Amino acid sequence: MTAKQEGRDNSGEVIALCGGVGGAKLALGLQHVLGDRLTVIVNVGDDFEHLGLRICPDLDTVLYTLSGLSDHSRGWGRAGETWQFMQALAELGGETWFSLGDRDLAVHVERTRRLRAGEALTDITGDLARRLGVRARVLPATDDVLQTKVLTSEGAFDFQRYFVKERCEPRISGVAFEGADGARISQAVSDAMGSDSLTGIVICPSNPYLSIDPILSIPPIQEGLRKRCVPAIAVSPIIAGKAVKGPTEKIMNELGVEPTSVAVARHYAGLIDGLVLDHKDAASVNELDLPAVVANTFMTDLDSRIKLAEVVLGFVAQLSTSGCR
Amino acid sequence: MTAKQEGRDNSGEVIALCGGVGGAKLALGLQHVLGDRLTVIVNVGDDFEHLGLRICPDLDTVLYTLSGLSDHSRGWGRAGETWQFMQALAELGGETWFSLGDRDLAVHVERTRRLRAGEALTDITGDLARRLGVRARVLPATDDVLQTKVLTSEGAFDFQRYFVKERCEPRISGVAFEGADGARISQAVSDAMGSDSLTGIVICPSNPYLSIDPILSIPPIQEGLRKRCVPAIAVSPIIAGKAVKGPTEKIMNELGVEPTSVAVARHYAGLIDGLVLDHKDAASVNELDLPAVVANTFMTDLDSRIKLAEVVLGFVAQLSTSGCR
Repeated sequence: MTAKQEGRDNSGEVIALCGGVGGAKLALGLQHVLGDRLTVIVNVGDDFEHLGLRICPDLDTVLYTLSGLSDHSRGWGRAGETWQFMQALAELGGETWFSLGDRDLAVHVERTRRLRAGEALTDITGDLARRLGVRARVLPATDDVLQTKVLTSEGAFDFQRYFVKERCEPRISGVAFEGADGARISQAVSDAMGSDSLTGIVICPSNPYLSIDPILSIPPIQEGLRKRCVPAIAVSPIIAGKAVKGPTEKIMNELGVEPTSVAVARHYAGLIDGLVLDHKDAASVNELDLPAVVANTFMTDLDSRIKLAEVVLGFVAQLSTSGCR
Repeated sequence: MTAKQEGRDNSGEVIALCGGVGGAKLALGLQHVLGDRLTVIVNVGDDFEHLGLRICPDLDTVLYTLSGLSDHSRGWGRAGETWQFMQALAELGGETWFSLGDRDLAVHVERTRRLRAGEALTDITGDLARRLGVRARVLPATDDVLQTKVLTSEGAFDFQRYFVKERCEPRISGVAFEGADGARISQAVSDAMGSDSLTGIVICPSNPYLSIDPILSIPPIQEGLRKRCVPAIAVSPIIAGKAVKGPTEKIMNELGVEPTSVAVARHYAGLIDGLVLDHKDAASVNELDLPAVVANTFMTDLDSRIKLAEVVLGFVAQLSTSGCR
């Protein structure tokens, strides 16, 4: 814990745990401040085989967001994307419920080819990130197969089928992470978590149940967080009882949890030392049994992402403690 | 041989053996006249795995040509094609020597997916042809693996690597068809060749060594042609000592064969009953030891393709004989 004891200066490394769009926005802000001192550990529970290709939705969202290639108005995929492939696929009777842009497709084809050739997802992701000009280290949470299954009134679904094909309509009764028990972390994730220069861990404002829990379900990551030697904080994805984007609020309701930042903090109990929540929820701070910071968590542009990242990093610095949990 | 004995009326079926661009032009003319009475048996020796996808260049050229989707000015691929995928792939450091258009890619991805799911290439091709509005039956010569290897001064190449990546530059010393000895024909090819309604077999003006020989190297097709009960004719791909397109002339020279229509006829000795050659080679007719028809074989537009098809079908009708070889 050398770096930690020497203080929260600009030389420290930070780990961000991240799902898709919402989390990636904060990761972009963090990258702006930290550059290559940021490691983003990304959910792979949504990864699936589609059209014979390995699709890694959260990894791609993070890569595209951190490289400045993401489409801001659509909210997913690449800016300036075209859809000739999908149109032609529809004419051939192919499955079209999951949209793959022509440029996006290059990532899926190249990654699938390299996976089949025996390369690890971590190495492929690192290479893609480098080629796309991403400064942060982007790491899949595991190279092993870990699949988020959404248990619903209409049966169990792979996450993307629930999310895209079923439009999150079936009522959720539970979530399972197949393969999590045996999932290992890569040397790169192990090194990042064990780094002497690590100064903090940030859980991005992603869906706790569907985007962050798959990461936390990996035993060495769970244990690493429980026994952390640096402060860990979460940024709540809930603002005034609603998720900025996606099904978080619906899922929390269906799982019998009130969609509030307080519930998010409780969900992460034992794993975090502080919560960042939106100023609209400032009144909730009194209900929390851990330190909190109120900020604007509704990130509409790069400036607001950087500002939130600065708040988050300042909070992490404040929470400095000596020794491990 | 009922149909044959009853004469060459419009109800008869015709088989065309076909490679890529040149052969597909005549196949389009034949389809115009014959509609669904045409069966095109297509070379698969050029098929290869690329980027984890099964690419079938000749099948696709035939499908795109017969469906009216092919690009006439470029000479390969689909009209109105875009190249976003290739550009994005280049940015990721992927292999870009073989150009895959965004729309074209849909065929490769969908076919590869279905092959991996256990479907036969014949069934997939039939379904794609139907969806693209192709009237003729398009059949791969075999569902088994048959690979054309070009033996050169610089080593052995898969055909597409020789053709596209090496631009046909290495000097050819021979051609081999790996897997041909054990290659079987599908029920559909067997049915077409054994049909009572079959009235003729046409070898399209494709490269005899690289596009037609792989088809003929399949034992039951070779035997079917040798023991044919209907006339078989070839249309020479050579006009005045030159190939309209592609490396036919270069290859014939390097294999020590003079690039002439006479040499083409000799190459098919025992397998054909007549040759159609260009009017520029009219003087060669005397050198042939089989019936010949002189025509315009330089197909610049749909009209010239239909006219050549009519000449070919008329010639087949003239060559009517009773009994099998």
